[in-house]
Amino acid sequence: MSSQRATLENPDETTAAGDTVRKALYEKLVALVGEGHVLMQEDDRQKHSKTTLPYSKACALILYPSTALEVQGIIKLANEYRWPVWPFSRGNNWGYGTKNALKENAIILVLERMNRIIEVNESLAYAVIEPGVSQKQLNDYLKENKINLWLDCTDSTPNGSILGNAIERGYGYTPYGDHFGHLCGLEVVLPNGGLLKTGGEHSSAKTWNTHKWGSGPYVEGLFSQSNLGVVVKGGVWLMPKPEDFRLFTFEVRSDDRLPEVINALRELSLAGTIQCHTHMVNDFQMLSLLGPYPYDKRDGKTHLSDAALGEFRKKFRIPRWSLVGGLYGAPDVLKMNRKKLKKRLCGLGDIDFFDDKKISAAKKFADFHAKSKEGSVSRIVASLLKPFISLKPIKLIQLIPDIHDILKGVPNESILASAYFKSSSRPPESNLNPAEDGCGIMWLAPTLPATGEAAEELLKLVKPIYESHGFEFSGCFTIINPRTFFLLMGIFFDQKDHEEKARALNLYHELNRAVKSGGFPQYRLGLPAMENFMENENEIHDLLARIKKAADPNGILAPGRYIASTA
Amino acid sequence: MSSQRATLENPDETTAAGDTVRKALYEKLVALVGEGHVLMQEDDRQKHSKTTLPYSKACALILYPSTALEVQGIIKLANEYRWPVWPFSRGNNWGYGTKNALKENAIILVLERMNRIIEVNESLAYAVIEPGVSQKQLNDYLKENKINLWLDCTDSTPNGSILGNAIERGYGYTPYGDHFGHLCGLEVVLPNGGLLKTGGEHSSAKTWNTHKWGSGPYVEGLFSQSNLGVVVKGGVWLMPKPEDFRLFTFEVRSDDRLPEVINALRELSLAGTIQCHTHMVNDFQMLSLLGPYPYDKRDGKTHLSDAALGEFRKKFRIPRWSLVGGLYGAPDVLKMNRKKLKKRLCGLGDIDFFDDKKISAAKKFADFHAKSKEGSVSRIVASLLKPFISLKPIKLIQLIPDIHDILKGVPNESILASAYFKSSSRPPESNLNPAEDGCGIMWLAPTLPATGEAAEELLKLVKPIYESHGFEFSGCFTIINPRTFFLLMGIFFDQKDHEEKARALNLYHELNRAVKSGGFPQYRLGLPAMENFMENENEIHDLLARIKKAADPNGILAPGRYIASTA
Repeated sequence: MSSQRATLENPDETTAAGDTVRKALYEKLVALVGEGHVLMQEDDRQKHSKTTLPYSKACALILYPSTALEVQGIIKLANEYRWPVWPFSRGNNWGYGTKNALKENAIILVLERMNRIIEVNESLAYAVIEPGVSQKQLNDYLKENKINLWLDCTDSTPNGSILGNAIERGYGYTPYGDHFGHLCGLEVVLPNGGLLKTGGEHSSAKTWNTHKWGSGPYVEGLFSQSNLGVVVKGGVWLMPKPEDFRLFTFEVRSDDRLPEVINALRELSLAGTIQCHTHMVNDFQMLSLLGPYPYDKRDGKTHLSDAALGEFRKKFRIPRWSLVGGLYGAPDVLKMNRKKLKKRLCGLGDIDFFDDKKISAAKKFADFHAKSKEGSVSRIVASLLKPFISLKPIKLIQLIPDIHDILKGVPNESILASAYFKSSSRPPESNLNPAEDGCGIMWLAPTLPATGEAAEELLKLVKPIYESHGFEFSGCFTIINPRTFFLLMGIFFDQKDHEEKARALNLYHELNRAVKSGGFPQYRLGLPAMENFMENENEIHDLLARIKKAADPNGILAPGRYIASTA
Repeated sequence: MSSQRATLENPDETTAAGDTVRKALYEKLVALVGEGHVLMQEDDRQKHSKTTLPYSKACALILYPSTALEVQGIIKLANEYRWPVWPFSRGNNWGYGTKNALKENAIILVLERMNRIIEVNESLAYAVIEPGVSQKQLNDYLKENKINLWLDCTDSTPNGSILGNAIERGYGYTPYGDHFGHLCGLEVVLPNGGLLKTGGEHSSAKTWNTHKWGSGPYVEGLFSQSNLGVVVKGGVWLMPKPEDFRLFTFEVRSDDRLPEVINALRELSLAGTIQCHTHMVNDFQMLSLLGPYPYDKRDGKTHLSDAALGEFRKKFRIPRWSLVGGLYGAPDVLKMNRKKLKKRLCGLGDIDFFDDKKISAAKKFADFHAKSKEGSVSRIVASLLKPFISLKPIKLIQLIPDIHDILKGVPNESILASAYFKSSSRPPESNLNPAEDGCGIMWLAPTLPATGEAAEELLKLVKPIYESHGFEFSGCFTIINPRTFFLLMGIFFDQKDHEEKARALNLYHELNRAVKSGGFPQYRLGLPAMENFMENENEIHDLLARIKKAADPNGILAPGRYIASTA
């Protein structure tokens, strides 16, 4: 036995030989990245293994390398010791798995110290950055240096990694919201420790960060949603600051108008009137943005009744579906597109537009309100700020300026706060961390063709599953491209309620199975969905397994992450 | 020796054993696809091996399968007999290699019989087609069935394959001109004979043709510019017919304004004013569109002098650089963008816009002229058609309606005719086939960042190379995306002039080396450039070789095409 390596599958935990091997690996890793950048104490490992899922997988240790060279060294050691390594850019993948591996005892690689902004090219409108660069960091950099480029950010944490989200193929709100689509030029540490520059014949190419497809096979897609490399540098296209910008909101009149709204959004997107990624939340998801979960209104059941939800819609004056989006461009373009939006949508609900002036009034109103007693807005103030009285609950008015910022690429935590919906504690003032703060939230995100018919079919499929598991349906239709939406579905649960946790996981698995067999594949996967991903897709499964074997013969890089290791 | 297979590298041509093996393979192939669909006669093989390059590679035989199943069978036989197979959709890749393999004696697979239009989805604006579907075929289908979708076509032959061009990552003119970017959902016969459907967990996905990235690793890029599979079906996004359309032309005032024009085009593209892929040809490339090469003006040299070229510019009233592009959208959008174009470009040259009325007048003028004697336009007709008198030579006026059509996705042969520039014969009335008709033309297409500075640097690099090899520089700057252009460079030569052929090939190789080491990688490659592609790119070369080995252990699929088989 002594000649065998201790591995994840065969950790040899209890033997002295296993201990010796582990100790030797630890020491080499410490020598490589420095003692201060290796977390191996029990409490650190506990803290950093926390997720917002109903379970967590404990890791062996957490490493914080600072250079690509260190990453290469780690990968080489992992090969030598046959020890799985799971890389994360900044590891804030809440609702999908945070920075957990599929199995326990992996080495977790967090790249947040690799946070260099290597280049910002203003005229060609791109940045080259490392995976540790956060949304906040790049946005601050652009603003401080008066660079006329806008970031597209997600509505998750400002501390989130730009490259990490792009590699995972996440979406934002602006016309640059397809983050993988706007990624151009990668440097990747391969599972054999080599450092690859994408682009084909591009190692000295002037177009490495401008021409996405490069020369020869386009391989960057292989490193998205996969386990074939550690992205250590990447080019990101940025949006030249538009001459003008306008936030718009739209409230769908009634549930039965939803299919028609979906069709209208497709038509407007195909025609180029809408170029952004509109988000449309249902009443329950909106409720999660407005305050803590109303446990007292459950009426003995595990979830709110339709009637109780109806009360909330009434109280907060929120519709079944609420949409936000943005118009970007020259003032005359905006004016025209505003007209087109109004014309197409007016029969289906209420549309509203917000310029900077109106947003600043909303801010004042919200501030004033925060200082006064809840609900006690004076008549004078109310009349002064008339446009917002129709905007209903103060929480919504407070949200609007933050959403306005997100649509301008300025990240903030206002949407993220909804992760605390079922927590016993309210979100802190800043630096929200739903995993460490014990929140319970899981996301699923099936895709659907952008037709009202498909939207109806998907809702008919998933809503009864929520119902039968005793949860409220939480959904957000988001435009991926003019032909496709995803429906972001949340499962909120209380980490302290063991019965609810088990029920939440059952719900997750049933939803995952249902959307898969229903023909609505998810645009990205949470950890629990990876176990049997592609189980019925023989050819692609086999090809990817062959590629994995060729690129990572020892199977050390994030085994099971999107690509199964055996055909 | 008898146990060894006859292969391309070891054809065993002269032995009886080799003959027997070849004969057995032939018979099995004939049994598979039918005798009428196997060309193996010497004259057929000669005819179909012809290229527009200075050389051709004779093939073993040409197969025309009609189903994916037949393609799978062929691939399996190729594996059994270790015989290289080179697939081509319709094989009209003139100027890059037509349907030649890198080495002689390969089996050539032409997929033109697989020409089914499987689905056209008008509301979601896509088509699912087989590789044999030509540009003309799909355009005709859309028009005949009154489907309000527009194709983006290339300016090459209407008989060209839509999927073939997209897989090779070709470009057209309209906002949908990035053909690979608008490809969504592929079926691919793998080198092991398996049939793969892309998209990850998409085998029954409703979003297979709407959501480009799918679930899990995005693999479609692997099948573009590569030798990892035979694409047998694909989804293509089509453009909803815009409410309005306008062709515009722009003549750059002088050579020294070119960098500023490039910068203006980038800014207009980044801002979304220009959404199409403008093409801007130099004087010599324009000359190739207007008639036969003026051999009599060479003045004893191998190429036209600057002075002679100046004479032609004067005679035809053409500028150093001429651009075409299109505006697409609602009438008010067009009006606005027209203003913005004028404002930004007016100081740099002359801009002109063409609506349907003006185009129809141009047609009438050209027809009238064709019927009268060359140049003898009566004063009355001239005054009636005044707007076109400024449009200079009759050849240009004849071209405008055809270019107008191409910009609306209606393919025609007017640009392709330039391939006959140095031929002894003029292009036929229709069904142009430059390879079979003995034309000499090669294309190179380096990419460059969309800056005036880069354009100047690239021109300074390549123009002296043309000069030193005794050729006129022929170039066309085309927008790939707002951040990138390619410079399409033509080498025109006379297939009957052996000295010129040798010189043309030398020029090609030197240009290829120069743009590679200069940091201007080509967006696609001609056959002569594939020999040493990626020779200095160790990591990507090694990764792709590993993938190739894993996917195609016998190396039977298009060996050497973009991916070298050994690391």
